[in-house]
Amino acid sequence: MLEEYKQQTKCLVALDSIIFGFDGEELKLLLVKRGIEPDRDTWSLMGGWLKSNESLDEAANRILLELTGLEGVFLEQLSAFGDPNRDSVERTVAVAYYALVNVADYEKKISDKFHAKWFSMHELPELLFDHAEMVKLAIERLRYKAAFHPVGFELMPDKFTIPQLQTLYEAIYGSKFDKRNFSRKILSTNLLVKLKEKQKGFSKKGAFLYQLDKSKYNLSN
Amino acid sequence: MLEEYKQQTKCLVALDSIIFGFDGEELKLLLVKRGIEPDRDTWSLMGGWLKSNESLDEAANRILLELTGLEGVFLEQLSAFGDPNRDSVERTVAVAYYALVNVADYEKKISDKFHAKWFSMHELPELLFDHAEMVKLAIERLRYKAAFHPVGFELMPDKFTIPQLQTLYEAIYGSKFDKRNFSRKILSTNLLVKLKEKQKGFSKKGAFLYQLDKSKYNLSN
Repeated sequence: MLEEYKQQTKCLVALDSIIFGFDGEELKLLLVKRGIEPDRDTWSLMGGWLKSNESLDEAANRILLELTGLEGVFLEQLSAFGDPNRDSVERTVAVAYYALVNVADYEKKISDKFHAKWFSMHELPELLFDHAEMVKLAIERLRYKAAFHPVGFELMPDKFTIPQLQTLYEAIYGSKFDKRNFSRKILSTNLLVKLKEKQKGFSKKGAFLYQLDKSKYNLSN
Repeated sequence: MLEEYKQQTKCLVALDSIIFGFDGEELKLLLVKRGIEPDRDTWSLMGGWLKSNESLDEAANRILLELTGLEGVFLEQLSAFGDPNRDSVERTVAVAYYALVNVADYEKKISDKFHAKWFSMHELPELLFDHAEMVKLAIERLRYKAAFHPVGFELMPDKFTIPQLQTLYEAIYGSKFDKRNFSRKILSTNLLVKLKEKQKGFSKKGAFLYQLDKSKYNLSN
């Protein structure tokens, strides 16, 4: 190998995935207990090491599958974290990924043998290494995206009401919104198609159902 | 060291910075010739390797300084790139950073001894490894940000005209905008304060000068 390459420091590269879940009411975070020393049994993001023959995306997906049994989750890269002391054993650069999924969809798919567990964002346990910092940045990214694009339609039933969508946004931001303002803002995006049907049962009048205009909504945004 | 850590693959970690420049007319990219084999003399982003005692941010800034003499540039992390074959010599995960600077401000500061050179985005040479992919993603990120926030006020003189700002936006997007629409959209952000002075010399009527309302504009967005 060439001289300049030989002289360089080598690091471990880790992948850590932040899996947010929405259960119709609040935002949750999927955690597993770390299986190795040091800090065995500390709650952790879905983390593991990069192998020599895989890309970062492939590794993040493989690790999620290995730790939870989950497949086909759309993971997006968040940021790399590289504080020299973030892992006490060995210099490790971590690349963090995140996803937002429907808790109900995935509850069945998460295999029991892995002991992965959903935590309310209001009751998170102490997290491994710099994982709390990663979660903080992921929340900021999610809010940033949600401020400019309607996000999270993957989490809604095919037909949904504006109050249901408002609940998701309130979960993402961790605060309450004015009903009328929220409705006005979300409808001004022109991404929702109002249906003639109403959702009955919660109020006398019922709430109109909406559907996403998929021709206008680009998931990759 | 612990058994699980020992079994893992170690990689080199590189930092590659995309330095965009605006010269009042068009968007440019700062490149240097790679100094080592393989691919010596191929045009490259500001790239180098992570050292054992520094964070990713520190490394990106150190490398930029070593290659160009530039200091104090606000570098933002873009994404990590980890294709297994992106560097033919050794498995290397690269963390890309980007910045947008004023060419005139930095022209004097870029030391001659480094042979760093500004290229028009329309006339880029062939780039090292996956650097073209990094540049493509950085342009997308810049356009995405510019679509929701006015960006690039760091590149404007203290007082500027709307047509000057339009030139920057046209450089970022690589296309022409309708004058009236651009003006309406940018003023609707309420971030600009119209001054009583006009810029004379280019047209009989002159163009009104504007200043950024710094109380409303948050650079970190």
